Amino acid sequence: MAEPLFRRLALIGIGLIGSSVARVAKERGGIAAEVVANARSQKTLDRVRELGIADRVEADPARAVEGADCVMLCAPVGAYAELAAAIAPHLAPGAILTDVGSTKVSVLRDVGPLVPEGVHFVPAHPLAGTEHSGPDAGFAALFDGRWTLLTPPPGTDPEAVERLAELWRRCGSMVESMEAAHHDRVLAIVSHLPHLIAFTICGTADDLADESRQEVLRFAASGFRDFTRIAASDPVMWRDIFLNNREALLEMLARFTEDAQAMARAIRWGDAAYLEDRISRGRKIRRSLIDLKQA
Amino acid sequence: MAEPLFRRLALIGIGLIGSSVARVAKERGGIAAEVVANARSQKTLDRVRELGIADRVEADPARAVEGADCVMLCAPVGAYAELAAAIAPHLAPGAILTDVGSTKVSVLRDVGPLVPEGVHFVPAHPLAGTEHSGPDAGFAALFDGRWTLLTPPPGTDPEAVERLAELWRRCGSMVESMEAAHHDRVLAIVSHLPHLIAFTICGTADDLADESRQEVLRFAASGFRDFTRIAASDPVMWRDIFLNNREALLEMLARFTEDAQAMARAIRWGDAAYLEDRISRGRKIRRSLIDLKQA
Repeated sequence: MAEPLFRRLALIGIGLIGSSVARVAKERGGIAAEVVANARSQKTLDRVRELGIADRVEADPARAVEGADCVMLCAPVGAYAELAAAIAPHLAPGAILTDVGSTKVSVLRDVGPLVPEGVHFVPAHPLAGTEHSGPDAGFAALFDGRWTLLTPPPGTDPEAVERLAELWRRCGSMVESMEAAHHDRVLAIVSHLPHLIAFTICGTADDLADESRQEVLRFAASGFRDFTRIAASDPVMWRDIFLNNREALLEMLARFTEDAQAMARAIRWGDAAYLEDRISRGRKIRRSLIDLKQA
Repeated sequence: MAEPLFRRLALIGIGLIGSSVARVAKERGGIAAEVVANARSQKTLDRVRELGIADRVEADPARAVEGADCVMLCAPVGAYAELAAAIAPHLAPGAILTDVGSTKVSVLRDVGPLVPEGVHFVPAHPLAGTEHSGPDAGFAALFDGRWTLLTPPPGTDPEAVERLAELWRRCGSMVESMEAAHHDRVLAIVSHLPHLIAFTICGTADDLADESRQEVLRFAASGFRDFTRIAASDPVMWRDIFLNNREALLEMLARFTEDAQAMARAIRWGDAAYLEDRISRGRKIRRSLIDLKQA
């Protein structure tokens, strides 16, 4: 087993992602000699203790980060500003402050200004997850073969970036760095818009007259069934993602809506060639994903 | 093994669904003493012969239906009118004429008027499928635990309906009858609209500037990845479904678009409570599906 990268890793929030990192540290080693977990609710802290996935639990985020050489925010992104204010004065000099949030411009905005001199700020986003949430939902293999994107602000110490990249590689991830605004645009289309659509169509179905609604559930076919799986994800986490990637998400939704209206028009006027062409693109993109082993 | 329900089953079109029915007949028995397969292309006919899933292949649909006591249309719904005109004069008296199409009002419209006196017309729709197509894609377990909906027009012989229901039960399906227009509305939301959305978002991604497009493929996350799987389905089949369930599909798309606009407005104005409420519905619906064992 490799020498641990960090002496003490503090996980601020320990849901699906945080508890998966904790499990990697415990089951595979090489991450941190000690893992400290902080959560907002006592219930989660108790559960983490029962699961035995952290060496120590702390109800106070300020205490959790004391003496940690890596601090990872694993809470919904809407909670970052308050958390950062609470922990900033307690961060150890030379520590790396990172996160796992799905929006990155908002993290630079909410956390960036609070980072003390001498602390390395390296935001990150592992592109991994399931529709389940909470500390029971995590598992060590979650990040295997998936990308983790780092969005260090200009001027970040390259050694700190490399150390965090190594943490994610040891979690099984492939790692790449990019600019935060670019990250948010790419994620808007590959993740945030699909989730927005999935939540919306569940609501549309839920609003149908009672008889049809019962039959929608009863006869849920492929398509709707897949959408409901996506839509089962954590409401607070997704609320925060939508609110914190507003510009890029609204732009992608506007593009999508234009395209959907063009499909509607082709259906109304019987434009078979247009429909076939647009439908065929789905296959092409699917094939590209399979070739890239991201399917 | 049960006595076969039919002496001769003619499959007009033999892609994913048709070849799965043929495989049930061959592997599980109890369906038909003889299976005759017809397809538009010689390539498909040759492949069906190689696969050995039919007792006989026929290039001419009229010859394929001769002497068959069950004829099942398994082609894209847009081809039904022409096929029905070709086979109608050759249908055996007392035969059941059925289909597996995803739109049912259009089948009553396109096929109904051509059904000869003495032939029982029982449209059906097995709610089963994968994103793959063609005779290689089928498998005998495809219908296990899935619903098949029958939409017999008023006055159809109940014995013929029951015989077809028994065919689908022997394919592993649960069976229910409903009115064709109602079927089309339910399917518009559980299947047709999700597919329309999935095709559309793939097109939206494909239209992005080149750099972003590459990264969409590279970093395809859960959400987009699931949509591309749905969007890999057969283009001609889906083109025909969209064109043949126009009214119901456009209505559901309009409702969905209104709901998506309301989400966009909530995001723009930071209405966190609205977003959380709408997102939570996804979970609720997912849970209902799991309870109904349709997840």
